[in-house]
Amino acid sequence: MSEQLHKIGVVGLGLMGSSIIVALLKAGCEVVAVTPLVEEFEEGKNRIIEQLQLAAGMKLLTEDVPSYRQRLQVSKDFQDLKPCQLVIECIIEVEAIKREVYHKIELEVAADCIIASNTSAIPINILQRYLERPNRFMGIHWAEPAYATRFLEITCGELTEVRLAEMVQEAALGWEKEPTLLYKDIRGFITNRLMYAVYRQGFELINNNTVDMAGLDKCFQYDIGSWITIMGIFKRMDYIGLHHYLHTFEQIFPKLTQSDVVPPIMDSIIKENGRGIHNLIGLYPHDEQSASSLENNFAAFNEEIYLLADRYRAKLKELNLTETNGK
Amino acid sequence: MSEQLHKIGVVGLGLMGSSIIVALLKAGCEVVAVTPLVEEFEEGKNRIIEQLQLAAGMKLLTEDVPSYRQRLQVSKDFQDLKPCQLVIECIIEVEAIKREVYHKIELEVAADCIIASNTSAIPINILQRYLERPNRFMGIHWAEPAYATRFLEITCGELTEVRLAEMVQEAALGWEKEPTLLYKDIRGFITNRLMYAVYRQGFELINNNTVDMAGLDKCFQYDIGSWITIMGIFKRMDYIGLHHYLHTFEQIFPKLTQSDVVPPIMDSIIKENGRGIHNLIGLYPHDEQSASSLENNFAAFNEEIYLLADRYRAKLKELNLTETNGK
Repeated sequence: MSEQLHKIGVVGLGLMGSSIIVALLKAGCEVVAVTPLVEEFEEGKNRIIEQLQLAAGMKLLTEDVPSYRQRLQVSKDFQDLKPCQLVIECIIEVEAIKREVYHKIELEVAADCIIASNTSAIPINILQRYLERPNRFMGIHWAEPAYATRFLEITCGELTEVRLAEMVQEAALGWEKEPTLLYKDIRGFITNRLMYAVYRQGFELINNNTVDMAGLDKCFQYDIGSWITIMGIFKRMDYIGLHHYLHTFEQIFPKLTQSDVVPPIMDSIIKENGRGIHNLIGLYPHDEQSASSLENNFAAFNEEIYLLADRYRAKLKELNLTETNGK
Repeated sequence: MSEQLHKIGVVGLGLMGSSIIVALLKAGCEVVAVTPLVEEFEEGKNRIIEQLQLAAGMKLLTEDVPSYRQRLQVSKDFQDLKPCQLVIECIIEVEAIKREVYHKIELEVAADCIIASNTSAIPINILQRYLERPNRFMGIHWAEPAYATRFLEITCGELTEVRLAEMVQEAALGWEKEPTLLYKDIRGFITNRLMYAVYRQGFELINNNTVDMAGLDKCFQYDIGSWITIMGIFKRMDYIGLHHYLHTFEQIFPKLTQSDVVPPIMDSIIKENGRGIHNLIGLYPHDEQSASSLENNFAAFNEEIYLLADRYRAKLKELNLTETNGK
């Protein structure tokens, strides 16, 4: 099946676009990279090469950079998308501009070409309406950097043909992803929605003086961090023993917060225009040095955890634990 | 301050007790290990030595095993707790038995000796009432294995003197922990409460057919797993940029589930007496081989993530990012 998605177009050569291009090249695909912005053309080409070199530095490539470069066509012309079986849009999050880009894509590609957006801001249900053939449209949501993360969410809109989303899911296994298929378009995607439940509860515990912020952070970091990389939350239940959860679910679910307002602590920092490490005003105190240290260490950590997660993924994969009874 | 908590008693030599004993010995403390069960005495002594050897195998010890053994006294007699400045109870989770043990401890120790429980089942507010001096009582909740995890929750009951809990918190830094102080006794501790918010929301997404269980697991595992080990959730907000959260909090908090019933999927598996990998009936399908592979791989992973987390902890620690503005 994934043979059918071998030639892939990417529109938008920003940081995310070029990272997705490298992920696809790494997977052996032929990529047509189109920029709708003339000024992005040279810059975009360079960015792709830089990211290929970063991937090579992480020892993620099996061929040399020029070999991958040969399977890449960079263009300013939407006509070059014509032979593509899938086109992924990763341009600026502005509805009107996306709408125009979809129109340009649809003018060129075949009727059975799948069109996807990497949007994390605009519902697929909305974007879908801008297409002549909305059934072929879906969200494909990558994590950064796309060539060194397994995460991928494929989101169906109301009008998306599920068969096509499943085709992308299957192809994504060949891109060395661990794709998750969302049958419905929900705001905030899966991980965000789960994490917002954590944030809501976490702010509640801070507000009612149960714990302080750094204390809560340490708890979550050292407890969840010790297992999440090799188990999801449901497999964790099987590991611990399901019977341990029943009673506590009954007891604690009713005690969880139902608040739906922005936590007061956020308000005051937002009033100061706080943007965290990006302007050194955040929940934690920051200075230039601590902010850049966090960024650099996180980048280095990301590489290490990717490789570590991978080794265990391979070991557990042999056992084929991907099917559940739950669903 | 932590000098004041150098001689520590541990009551109960089960798996958790002996693991805590090794953590304290490793930190340089003198430990008096008391078992209330005669039949546990020899077995308990052997278990402590085994765990010391495991810690040595992980290269977590700076001295040889006999040196640590010299700072350990194993006893059947509560009188040997007399010189201790802190006594930690880690016996079976039965209120009546714990009550009796606290009585025996209080008969021996000095008036200013701190007494703590490793309970994860019974509220500190309840256990505290069984003491003659409830102000000196608190929860100290460890993760398994105690000598190779940073996680530690110190929980105050209503009557606990906060000053004493802070003294334990400071001492715990010397035990090479990242302790979190809970000023209030909440059911389920911090991480559990946060994770139950995730479970509640996760089951909701499965129930309404947005995603399947294995898909949700993969999302959370590969997304959260890529950063949680070096950042807590609030530091993550600073890293991403606080302004990105305000709008989505406003939008998504009202959409989060407020359900407080046990998810229907759980019911059917619980009816089958499902205990996950422990009887091979769970949310995922299991067999003997996959269950033991998960256990073995998780044990090996735990060692690796501990060392990996530690390296980044040391790097970021230099920058002293432990104070927050939030609280």
